[in-house]
Amino acid sequence: MLYHSTLQASSRAIRLLLAEYDLEQKLVEEHLWERRAEFLAINPAATLPVLVDAQTVIIGVGPIAEYLDETEGALKRERRLYSEDPIQRAEMRRLVDWALVKFENEVTRYIVNERVTKRIIPADAGNRSPDSQALRAARTNIKYHLDYLGWLAATRNWMAGDRMSFADIALASAISALDYLGEVPWEERQELREWYARIKSRPAFRTLLQDRVRGVPPVAHYVDLDF
Amino acid sequence: MLYHSTLQASSRAIRLLLAEYDLEQKLVEEHLWERRAEFLAINPAATLPVLVDAQTVIIGVGPIAEYLDETEGALKRERRLYSEDPIQRAEMRRLVDWALVKFENEVTRYIVNERVTKRIIPADAGNRSPDSQALRAARTNIKYHLDYLGWLAATRNWMAGDRMSFADIALASAISALDYLGEVPWEERQELREWYARIKSRPAFRTLLQDRVRGVPPVAHYVDLDF
Repeated sequence: MLYHSTLQASSRAIRLLLAEYDLEQKLVEEHLWERRAEFLAINPAATLPVLVDAQTVIIGVGPIAEYLDETEGALKRERRLYSEDPIQRAEMRRLVDWALVKFENEVTRYIVNERVTKRIIPADAGNRSPDSQALRAARTNIKYHLDYLGWLAATRNWMAGDRMSFADIALASAISALDYLGEVPWEERQELREWYARIKSRPAFRTLLQDRVRGVPPVAHYVDLDF
Repeated sequence: MLYHSTLQASSRAIRLLLAEYDLEQKLVEEHLWERRAEFLAINPAATLPVLVDAQTVIIGVGPIAEYLDETEGALKRERRLYSEDPIQRAEMRRLVDWALVKFENEVTRYIVNERVTKRIIPADAGNRSPDSQALRAARTNIKYHLDYLGWLAATRNWMAGDRMSFADIALASAISALDYLGEVPWEERQELREWYARIKSRPAFRTLLQDRVRGVPPVAHYVDLDF
C-alpha cells in the first residue's frame, strides 16, 4: 500500500518506480491537512510518500527508492534504475535531490500548493488565501531550473549519464506535476522536450497520465505523447 | 577536500562520518552568499556539503554519506555506520531525513540563520534584518522535535536501533549546532542527554567541539562531556 498525493513529485516518483519494476501497490490518497491519527501513528513526520506492506513501513521518497533498489532493483539486471558504480550512483542521487528537494522548494511545492491544495483544502483546515507572490516567484524560478535540465538533456543521453536511472524518474515526476497544470514553458526547449517525451512514452508512465484531480482538470497536452 | 559550513548540520554530519572512518579531508569553509564562480562551477545548486577528491565530486549530504558507505563503510565490519539489513537502512535513512530536512527546515536553519549567518554576512550580500518571528517559531518547534527524539532515546539503544548508525550522527550534528548556540532546552530530557553524551564522547566528535565561529563564541557547556 502506498500513501501518496496525486500531484506531489515525490509520490509520483515512487509510483513510477513501482511501475517500472512491475510492482503493484494499492494507492491511498492521503490528505495531510486532515492529520489523521492512523496516518500520524505510522509517520509522525506527517510526510508522503509512505510504503506499507505486511512486514515493513518505509517512509520518504529517498528511503523507499533505496529500499526498492536493494530488495528489487538489484535483481533487475539491465532494467535496474540505480547504477552499479558508486560515482554514477552519487550523480544520480544528486539529481534526485535536485528534483525532489531544490526544485520542489523553489518551484513545484509553491505551484501545486497555490493552484491545487488551496482549492481543495477545507476552509477550517488551513490558509486558503492565494499568495500571488509565491506563484510569481515559482514561475520565475522554473526557467532557471529548466535551463539547467535542458543543458543536461543536450549533453547526456539520460540525465545522470548513459543509462536511464531514478534521476530521470524523479525529474520527470516533478515536471509532470507542473505539466498537468500547464506550468512548463516548453517553447524553445527542444532537447528537454525530447527527453521528457521518451520518459512519457514508457508503459510505466501510463498510470500518471490517467491522473485527474477533482475540480482541476489537466491541460490538453498533458496526455499527448507527441506534445 | 570538503566544502562545508561550520554550523550547518549536513556539513557537520559528513565531518563526523569522515572522522569515524579515519578519513582525513582538508576542510574549506564556503560562504554561499559570496556565490564564488569556482564553487558554482562545481555545484550549480549552490549547496553544501561538497566532497572533492582527485577523481570525483560528490554533492550533498545524502549522496556523500551513501558514497562513503559504498566505498569505505562496507569494509569497516562492526564499525560500519549503515546496517546490512534493508529495513534497518530504511529506518536509518528516515531519521537522517528527519534530522537534515525536517528538523533543518523547522528549527536548525532558522536559528543558525538568525543568530549566525545574519551576523557575518556583509550588508550588501543579503538580508541582515533580524526576523524575531522565525526565531520564535523555531524555538517552539524544537520542543516537539526533542520530545520525539527523547522518546526514541528512551525506547532504543541507538536512534535507529541496536547499533550506532549514521542516523545518530545526523541527529547529533543538528543538535550540536544548536547546542553551540545554547539553544537546546536540556532540562528534563535525561534519556536524550545520555544519548548525546555518548556520541559527544567519541573521538570523532573532538573536531566539532573545537569549532569556533568568529564573533559567536559557543556557550560554556558546549565542550563539556559531562554537561
